[in-house]
Amino acid sequence: MFEMLRRILIGRPLHNKELTHQKLPKWKALSIFSSDALSSVGYGPEQIALTLSVSGLLVYGYFSYVFVAIIILLAVVTVSYVQVARANPGGGGSYSVAAANLGEYPALVAAASLFADYILTVAVSVSSGTDALISAFPVLVDYVVDIDLAVLFGFLMVINLRGVRESANVFVAPTYLFIGGILTLICFGLYHVVVVPGPLLPPESVVTQGLNGTILFLILRAFANGCSSMTGVEAISNGVPMFKRPEVKNAIATTYWMSAVLGVMIAGISFLIMHYHLLPLKNVTMLSHLAEIVFGRGWGYYYLQVTTMAVLYIAANTSYNGLPPLLSILARDGYMPRYLGSRGERLSFSNGIILLSAAAGALIYVFQGNVDRLLSLYAIGVFLSFTIAQTGLVVHWSRQRGTQWVSRLVTNALGAVVTGIVVLVIAISKFFSGAWMVLIFIPVMIYIFRSIRSHYSDVSEQLLLPAAELAKRMQQPRCGKIIVVVPVATPTRIVVETIRYAQMISKDIIAVHVAIDEEAGRRVAEQWRSLNPELSLEVIHSPYRLTIRPLLRFIAHLRKETAPEDVISVLISEFETRKWWHRLLHNQTGWILRTRLILQERVVVTTIPYHLTK
Amino acid sequence: MFEMLRRILIGRPLHNKELTHQKLPKWKALSIFSSDALSSVGYGPEQIALTLSVSGLLVYGYFSYVFVAIIILLAVVTVSYVQVARANPGGGGSYSVAAANLGEYPALVAAASLFADYILTVAVSVSSGTDALISAFPVLVDYVVDIDLAVLFGFLMVINLRGVRESANVFVAPTYLFIGGILTLICFGLYHVVVVPGPLLPPESVVTQGLNGTILFLILRAFANGCSSMTGVEAISNGVPMFKRPEVKNAIATTYWMSAVLGVMIAGISFLIMHYHLLPLKNVTMLSHLAEIVFGRGWGYYYLQVTTMAVLYIAANTSYNGLPPLLSILARDGYMPRYLGSRGERLSFSNGIILLSAAAGALIYVFQGNVDRLLSLYAIGVFLSFTIAQTGLVVHWSRQRGTQWVSRLVTNALGAVVTGIVVLVIAISKFFSGAWMVLIFIPVMIYIFRSIRSHYSDVSEQLLLPAAELAKRMQQPRCGKIIVVVPVATPTRIVVETIRYAQMISKDIIAVHVAIDEEAGRRVAEQWRSLNPELSLEVIHSPYRLTIRPLLRFIAHLRKETAPEDVISVLISEFETRKWWHRLLHNQTGWILRTRLILQERVVVTTIPYHLTK
Repeated sequence: MFEMLRRILIGRPLHNKELTHQKLPKWKALSIFSSDALSSVGYGPEQIALTLSVSGLLVYGYFSYVFVAIIILLAVVTVSYVQVARANPGGGGSYSVAAANLGEYPALVAAASLFADYILTVAVSVSSGTDALISAFPVLVDYVVDIDLAVLFGFLMVINLRGVRESANVFVAPTYLFIGGILTLICFGLYHVVVVPGPLLPPESVVTQGLNGTILFLILRAFANGCSSMTGVEAISNGVPMFKRPEVKNAIATTYWMSAVLGVMIAGISFLIMHYHLLPLKNVTMLSHLAEIVFGRGWGYYYLQVTTMAVLYIAANTSYNGLPPLLSILARDGYMPRYLGSRGERLSFSNGIILLSAAAGALIYVFQGNVDRLLSLYAIGVFLSFTIAQTGLVVHWSRQRGTQWVSRLVTNALGAVVTGIVVLVIAISKFFSGAWMVLIFIPVMIYIFRSIRSHYSDVSEQLLLPAAELAKRMQQPRCGKIIVVVPVATPTRIVVETIRYAQMISKDIIAVHVAIDEEAGRRVAEQWRSLNPELSLEVIHSPYRLTIRPLLRFIAHLRKETAPEDVISVLISEFETRKWWHRLLHNQTGWILRTRLILQERVVVTTIPYHLTK
Repeated sequence: MFEMLRRILIGRPLHNKELTHQKLPKWKALSIFSSDALSSVGYGPEQIALTLSVSGLLVYGYFSYVFVAIIILLAVVTVSYVQVARANPGGGGSYSVAAANLGEYPALVAAASLFADYILTVAVSVSSGTDALISAFPVLVDYVVDIDLAVLFGFLMVINLRGVRESANVFVAPTYLFIGGILTLICFGLYHVVVVPGPLLPPESVVTQGLNGTILFLILRAFANGCSSMTGVEAISNGVPMFKRPEVKNAIATTYWMSAVLGVMIAGISFLIMHYHLLPLKNVTMLSHLAEIVFGRGWGYYYLQVTTMAVLYIAANTSYNGLPPLLSILARDGYMPRYLGSRGERLSFSNGIILLSAAAGALIYVFQGNVDRLLSLYAIGVFLSFTIAQTGLVVHWSRQRGTQWVSRLVTNALGAVVTGIVVLVIAISKFFSGAWMVLIFIPVMIYIFRSIRSHYSDVSEQLLLPAAELAKRMQQPRCGKIIVVVPVATPTRIVVETIRYAQMISKDIIAVHVAIDEEAGRRVAEQWRSLNPELSLEVIHSPYRLTIRPLLRFIAHLRKETAPEDVISVLISEFETRKWWHRLLHNQTGWILRTRLILQERVVVTTIPYHLTK
């Protein structure tokens, strides 16, 4: 049953040979890698307006300054990431760049930041996608979290467990349909602006109040929120090897295209929001509000809402392309559990995919799918990893000194400084509203990374020996003997089987019975004598009615009495029942005994199953 | 840590010898056995009034008829249960009586009914106790379920796990304080009734509308609800051996005393409720309302609320004295899992106590501590077990024919008929409001009882052999051999240890490596050759990256190839880590492999622990 469901959802297992690196043409790569960046138009400009529309303060007029700053920042980041693609044609994100050029700690900071932001990307994108849906169909408002989780686990997780190739094709169309929709919205909007007289605005909305501390703080915060539009710009440079030849050139061209489209969309939407002086509405996104003004509530409106929803859900997929491979690299380097590094039956990094889904699901649940609150945590990690990657490249160019190395170094240095400043702005202006969580998360993750690595190196230090040494030990004659301990409850067929196995592996056999009361102890001892006069039975009296503790004590005692090269082998019989619930009718003493026994040195536990036939 | 907490809460383990049957004087036995019956004054009369105060129908005037019927029923039940004490001086409730006189099915019906009602007694008593508390301190109204669960798990479960003797003494004082309080309330109330002119009642409240179908149904329902006052009357007859000599005579005297007190209390409270024409108030019990009218909100009022609360909480304890021993009898007869029959470290039936607490906790949680809704399920099980016990006694007397057997037989026959009618009344009048659940629960439980018994008898049929046959099998020479299979990941120190253990138990050793890709497979095979040229390594290629399935297939194949008397012993090494979280860093392949392997015939699994030292 379970197996069948799995085959239907995930598909048949794939052979190692089927792991081929698909090469993407530019138009396809653009849609796959840029859905994250482009979709942020769905919430980025809104976030600026949201921050600037605090009642009682006249700061909405600063909108234009903020969005110009965002566009400039986008240009700087784009140019910097073109350099990343150039310097790392092998792909690999900030972690690889930092590990190669800056050392362990910066690399781990980058890894932790990326970790946080990949999870947040999923949570934010899925929640925003559902917000777009709710704006169009308000009747669904009570099911926000349920829809979020259904999309996350039922769609994103499943499609990614199926593996990369399927996911690629699903994602191409919606991105282009979305771009088309937004550009049409902007064109129609601009036409409206020219032809139709603008709405009557309250005069204070266009007045710009003089700068002071509070207002500056609000503006910086609006800028910090707006920076969420820029997450995902790095995706292309991480996936250079997936492009058709010449990879680097194609990747760079695609990066420029993506940034251009993103810039136009941010500018257009921001301008229209400003023009119509949109203010936040409950359960309606600004993009929805804008589309309603421009298109009316007709086909154009619903087209835009549905494509926005689709592209936002798909944007979450960027993380699925990014985090599992990163985890596998971290696992290879020993910073994460090893099994995160292995490919599942469909050649995808299934453990990483499940981990990402679970973490994003937990975030969505805790924040109840509230985009505004999730965004408070967002962007800081992305910009931190931007800064580290750019800094890494500065070191890279200064070491490598290829063609144009000076201009490249300067470009990346500029990028590092600018994104570094952005990190500071975000950290300070959003500190109390959520950035503190990320700032705690990063050092905690680094501690975890390093603890895991230190455990693995401890283990291999204990286990790995030079081949010669291993061979020598293997061929040494073994001098100790095996002492078999057989716990006996009542003499039944199962005990006979167990004793006969014991006789096959050793001559030293000790049968032990724990007697809850004296009467029962005597009876078992008597039965035993009639059964096998040669094999004596040790009866342990347990007037406190414990069974496991006296046995453990007996074996600990036996260890002291025997030679250090001897092995104590405890045989535990276990019922294998025909129906699962029958298991509940037998006590779990065997299981508990086994778990406790293997904690003792020189003790080996053998399970002898007895298969009940009915 | 855990151990220390346990010692503080539960106390030190008790030696078998400390299991002494304490003999109770009458005054102490009354308080211990009757808290359930007496405390039902806290909700019984209220339930009658509740049913009869349906708006729009004039049925409140029938209150007096209902309560007279209840008093008569109490007399019949009391006299019948005096006979039970006489016939079963060894104690044991309806189940034992039915098993001895009526056969398996009636006994199981009684057991299932008692099962349901013991759990409900706990849920109802605890919830009512909290209601008394809430009536006095309405500020706690939001914490009803939390208080219920805290009392249940923090007080009742713990004190019962500690064992019987402690529980006895805690329970004596509150019962008498409660009786005193209620009797004082009744006296003061009657004084008020005589001296102070009664309240002005709406004339329809005293008018009695003519009987019709609906009204008759309501009256029967009120009667059915009122019957909840009678639960617990059977407790004394189940505990005859705990009385001082002469046991039977003392038990009978105590039963009469209890019924007399209960009758006076029900009559007094019902009369006062009728006189003041109390109607249900939200979050205030009628007893609290009445106490406020009679005493005002002073010391008298708080005294009564606190003692009511205490006695209701204590009433839940009756189930703890009843269900765990019943479960242990059922376990002894094979109808319940064996481990419910064994005494824990404090000589109490700890598994039964935990089961009862968990079931009652679940009921309280599901019904959110709502007494009215819980009571819809109540009483039917009690009266069903009454009926069965009485019928059993009819058979008993007709077989035994001692002194006065005819009059005794007639008494019990009357009891059987009357309680049988009550069962029908409850089942019909409360069918849709909850009785259906109990009527489904009982056959389901009987099915479970019988399935469990049939499993145990299947098992013993398979395991138990005559002693001679066992001895013969044990001394037969074993002809098969052991084939050891050692799964190898990478050749490390741990593999060396495992192989050396394998060499101690057999000469037929097969080392197996599952290779995820060809390259790794070749590398391991090469290392292996340099390690031990004599011992060949079987490399299984697994291009689909599965490890467990190929191994299982390999061993299934091996089973086919080997003789049926051979045993295949699979050695699985397992890390024992120093810190619990280190375990998360190693995959659980060994554990899964073990669980799957022991399902195969002729396969034995040995765990060889490797203790990491850091």
